[in-house]
Amino acid sequence: MSPPLKYVNRLPKSVQAARLLWAIAYYLLFRPTPRWALHGWRRLILRLFGASVGQGCRIDPSCKIWAPWNLSMGDYCAIAANVDCYNVAPITLQTKVAISQRSFLCTASHDISSVLRPLIYSAIRVESHVWVAAEAMIHPGVTLHEGCVVGARAVVLRDVQPWSIVVGSPATVVGIRKVTDKDLLQVPKGEV
Amino acid sequence: MSPPLKYVNRLPKSVQAARLLWAIAYYLLFRPTPRWALHGWRRLILRLFGASVGQGCRIDPSCKIWAPWNLSMGDYCAIAANVDCYNVAPITLQTKVAISQRSFLCTASHDISSVLRPLIYSAIRVESHVWVAAEAMIHPGVTLHEGCVVGARAVVLRDVQPWSIVVGSPATVVGIRKVTDKDLLQVPKGEV
Amino acid sequence: MSPPLKYVNRLPKSVQAARLLWAIAYYLLFRPTPRWALHGWRRLILRLFGASVGQGCRIDPSCKIWAPWNLSMGDYCAIAANVDCYNVAPITLQTKVAISQRSFLCTASHDISSVLRPLIYSAIRVESHVWVAAEAMIHPGVTLHEGCVVGARAVVLRDVQPWSIVVGSPATVVGIRKVTDKDLLQVPKGEV
Repeated sequence: MSPPLKYVNRLPKSVQAARLLWAIAYYLLFRPTPRWALHGWRRLILRLFGASVGQGCRIDPSCKIWAPWNLSMGDYCAIAANVDCYNVAPITLQTKVAISQRSFLCTASHDISSVLRPLIYSAIRVESHVWVAAEAMIHPGVTLHEGCVVGARAVVLRDVQPWSIVVGSPATVVGIRKVTDKDLLQVPKGEV
Repeated sequence: MSPPLKYVNRLPKSVQAARLLWAIAYYLLFRPTPRWALHGWRRLILRLFGASVGQGCRIDPSCKIWAPWNLSMGDYCAIAANVDCYNVAPITLQTKVAISQRSFLCTASHDISSVLRPLIYSAIRVESHVWVAAEAMIHPGVTLHEGCVVGARAVVLRDVQPWSIVVGSPATVVGIRKVTDKDLLQVPKGEV
Repeated sequence: MSPPLKYVNRLPKSVQAARLLWAIAYYLLFRPTPRWALHGWRRLILRLFGASVGQGCRIDPSCKIWAPWNLSMGDYCAIAANVDCYNVAPITLQTKVAISQRSFLCTASHDISSVLRPLIYSAIRVESHVWVAAEAMIHPGVTLHEGCVVGARAVVLRDVQPWSIVVGSPATVVGIRKVTDKDLLQVPKGEV
């Protein structure tokens, strides 16, 4: 076999070191906390590692976060049990976003135009009032626009328009979300 | 942000207390048991917490059950490893039902007509001789009629007709299940 | 209920014994090892249990392998975190294959033409330079031909042609993989 095929994707040493520190903090201070309490403590830990986390966010202790320094959350967001927040590139959640259990926000992929398959990545943005239902998957580079709903188990390859509903694999639009109490939406502009 | 947006879905105190007791029993008495034995013991624990469980049922210790008091199983049913039986509303399995590994029976959702996304739920019923293959997902309110087969990874949004086969996400009918030994089906009527 | 319906699928005693030994070795010697090191040690353990494992393979310690004696890997293959290699029948990976996190290689199923649903199984073959992306599922009997790409979360029911790209559930062809550096492919014929 030609030597290049032995190639293994490697992260810069600085990222490896930061990830090691984060792993230690995660397993000692974050993951062993009880699900129903210590929300503020978990927010604090994430902020110490560079995350921007708004008030009232609830992040389940079983949630996996690849790099807190690539995570930005507005107010009152929720990340549920066993979500995989694979943020090799930045992941941004605006306000009142819910990411349900076992969802997979995936910013990384491989360049398949080479037999070496080098790592590539692209940011994910989730705007305010979006709900990503259980076990959905969001591909690298996707933006979920305001108020849209990603159905359970949906696999989202492309941007989703505001207040639309997508389901399936790959996800397609199946409806428009009609909200009867939109007057409650008094979110200050420019949050996050 | 307007105060209602801070709203967090809360369960009644009585349900919270029951769930806490069940969590303790689950982690001490149910989950640490060996997969290949103590089937009767696990059935007993579930019955003590209000489940109706027929004879010969095999429930894997890694199976997650949200509320045993919302679970009803006929005879000779099997629930495999790491199934998530998320029964906020009742889940009923009739006779000789198999739920394969990592499947997700999901009775709960959110009402997306409100920006507050209040919790909603609806029961799931699985009739006799149904097989839900590995990593399938059943949505709230769905009935799987007698003898149908839900293919691995299928995502079922609507009722499935008797002895039909569905696959895909969302699941669609791909065939009819022809059984060559239906004479073996001598299940007493009215079970479960 | 007629007695046959009480039937439970059972493996031969010899397989049960081998699986018990493997489970002990797995939990004591394989699974507790660190992800970023001891690749050679994990290859050794697998070989001691009958696997054929080429040089440079990286097998994550959280990967589940049902039967090492039914696993054959060429050089420089990678099996990522929490992959379920459910090889009741043989699974063969040729050279430079990547199986990403939480993918499910499933060789077993049930014969649904009988109400007893006896276990059936069929081998999976993954040829050189294939990438199975995260959380994909490969059904029993499938061959993934050289250089193809199975998109994240795809559910593959049928063979995939060489250098093609499939996504979705069920998976369908969405493109041809064009590789710009195919000259690097100097894999000796007949490997694995």
